[in-house]
Amino acid sequence: MYKINENYLKLQGSYLFSTIGKKVAAYKEANPDRDVISLGIGDVTQPLAPAVIEALHKAVDEMAVAETFHGYAPDLGYEFLRSAIRENDYKARGVDIALDEIFISDGAKSDSGNIGDIFAENNRIAVCDPVYPVYVDTNVMAGRTGEFIKETESWSNVIYMPCTKATNFAPEIPKETPDIIYLCFPNNPTGSTITKDQLQEWVDYANKVGAVIIYDAAYEAYISEDNVPHTIYECDGAKTCAIELRSFSKNAGFTGTRLGFTVIPKELESNGTKLNALWARRHGTKFNGAPYIIQRAGEAVYSEEGKKQTQAQVAYYMNNAKVIMDGLKNAGFSVSGGVNAPYVWLETPKDMTSWEFFDYLLNNANIVGTPGSGFGPSGEGYFRLTAFGTHENTLKAIERIKNL
Amino acid sequence: MYKINENYLKLQGSYLFSTIGKKVAAYKEANPDRDVISLGIGDVTQPLAPAVIEALHKAVDEMAVAETFHGYAPDLGYEFLRSAIRENDYKARGVDIALDEIFISDGAKSDSGNIGDIFAENNRIAVCDPVYPVYVDTNVMAGRTGEFIKETESWSNVIYMPCTKATNFAPEIPKETPDIIYLCFPNNPTGSTITKDQLQEWVDYANKVGAVIIYDAAYEAYISEDNVPHTIYECDGAKTCAIELRSFSKNAGFTGTRLGFTVIPKELESNGTKLNALWARRHGTKFNGAPYIIQRAGEAVYSEEGKKQTQAQVAYYMNNAKVIMDGLKNAGFSVSGGVNAPYVWLETPKDMTSWEFFDYLLNNANIVGTPGSGFGPSGEGYFRLTAFGTHENTLKAIERIKNL
Repeated sequence: MYKINENYLKLQGSYLFSTIGKKVAAYKEANPDRDVISLGIGDVTQPLAPAVIEALHKAVDEMAVAETFHGYAPDLGYEFLRSAIRENDYKARGVDIALDEIFISDGAKSDSGNIGDIFAENNRIAVCDPVYPVYVDTNVMAGRTGEFIKETESWSNVIYMPCTKATNFAPEIPKETPDIIYLCFPNNPTGSTITKDQLQEWVDYANKVGAVIIYDAAYEAYISEDNVPHTIYECDGAKTCAIELRSFSKNAGFTGTRLGFTVIPKELESNGTKLNALWARRHGTKFNGAPYIIQRAGEAVYSEEGKKQTQAQVAYYMNNAKVIMDGLKNAGFSVSGGVNAPYVWLETPKDMTSWEFFDYLLNNANIVGTPGSGFGPSGEGYFRLTAFGTHENTLKAIERIKNL
Repeated sequence: MYKINENYLKLQGSYLFSTIGKKVAAYKEANPDRDVISLGIGDVTQPLAPAVIEALHKAVDEMAVAETFHGYAPDLGYEFLRSAIRENDYKARGVDIALDEIFISDGAKSDSGNIGDIFAENNRIAVCDPVYPVYVDTNVMAGRTGEFIKETESWSNVIYMPCTKATNFAPEIPKETPDIIYLCFPNNPTGSTITKDQLQEWVDYANKVGAVIIYDAAYEAYISEDNVPHTIYECDGAKTCAIELRSFSKNAGFTGTRLGFTVIPKELESNGTKLNALWARRHGTKFNGAPYIIQRAGEAVYSEEGKKQTQAQVAYYMNNAKVIMDGLKNAGFSVSGGVNAPYVWLETPKDMTSWEFFDYLLNNANIVGTPGSGFGPSGEGYFRLTAFGTHENTLKAIERIKNL
């Protein structure tokens, strides 16, 4: 008799955003006349940039003719895209990354889940708390997290690094030594960042204790301050301890277009085994590449026009972030984030729990946000609003909150 | 210190098609004047059908405007595509599959690798021999295959079901009882099929011993004979023992466009746990959907025009298969497959090994095929040619083989 992966049965509830989706659907069904505004899930609302649309049409036309048709893509992704990434995301920042250290994928969610494949089960992970649920849930599936402790809403074998007001929403070096450290800056969900000097401390620590850092830089395009690193490889020694995940979802609105990449430097070794080679093997065996036309769309993001247009989109969302920040502050809320990230992190008022505030906001202002506790135990008492709505809806939502 | 997944170190060589790619690249570099024809990797050469191209352009235009822009897709995939699949691939064949039993993905390679996630490590797998390498390699990565035995070129904990001339290229019920049975019909690499009655025996066997069948029907569109099942769910009782994988790669030329789906009936349970729910959780946690525009392209495959056009492509390739079959027979080769599948399976002449014949064909006829031994120990002495080349190249290749 076949046996299922029992770790799946340990998973708590369903994936956060599925739960929110169901709650909102139920509310809308019961209140069909209400205009519900979502500042919940981190999904973009602006259409793809004209340069990207043009590249897509052109690539579609290529697929219509045998001479320019593209079948299976190269294992690592097309060189035109990896070259553009190397030049723009790394060389332009003084970082030298080789073409075969870049792996094109269908997005950072897949990569952040799949990266666990190349590590043994008996690694101990450390995560920021609150944290993007995918890091933890995929490690639950892999059997690395121990048991769920209901009282503390946490996993027995996970090292939690609280990021609360008390720590200025940055993690501190943990007392127990982890094997795999997940870091995401600019942070989802808190919108916080750390400086290059602070990140250097993490790199030094990882190299010292022999830990590997999974560095999620999906929100890099939202960095507005000077001393915030755009890639972990700006730090000395990062190539011997860090994997970087990147995404086109938030800098170019590819949430429904699907493109991302992972960087694994060849210096990253465990007892002589290069993680780059392991990931190359996984990539070649369990994945068949992002679509050609989507890789061409990704290339267009790096064109001169593409850069201008996508930067304008980021500016649009960051203007929303400012509206939310200012509005909430005026309404008396305690807020953070929103400066180098499209996420605003607020303290729930009147000792409401995160889910109480979710229900309160949905029922009284018809606004959907994300409960902080959905991101981990230290997220309790906090709430996330995203700047990815339309400007009109963002203004309307903030008006409603002010009037509560 | 972090630990890597040591199972990866057990993998033998690199992925079959990477090895072939390197050999061919080396030959071309040494012989830049030669016209090398590939009938090796199963990649298509015909451009996307006009109906698909039209749907892609239309969807790209939708992504250009905020009102019709699409962000994150629904977890299981868009309903328009799942409905088309339900109607055309199942209802039209008298099979009732619910919408939430269909999971849209980026292709059958990803699915056939990832499906292992929902099963425990201590399952024993059975595979046809020869077999699509992804089934075995991904189980090596998951630690299910035991040790590699050099003498027999096989894994100690895998049940091999030889499919050779002696078994009419069909597997026989194994002596040892497996937990997970991988079946692929029409078969890659042998091009063979089994009848509905034969498949029913496998379904009955799986239900009897409590095994789950992973049924890969990626080549379903190539079935030309009447008594060959198009889906495993045509068999009674398949819903309690079988998962079906499907692909758009070979029926519609999506190898570089990436789309597939997996069907998991809700009747498929292990001690009360529905595999459908486990896969839904994996799908929602480790994957973010196929691109909207690609899902629209998939929908177009099921339109009246799309069906006509893609059927014409299949006919084009099957005409190639006939050319290869007839040509090889005339040249004195012993061949099989090629009637319900785009693969022709031939016995290597003069006791050559598969790789010897690969080198011989590359060096003397400048034709790339795939060595049967790359698909498993019982593939030794066989060789695969695919019908996916252009008609001109296929004719030319067969002429060259005849003249050897």
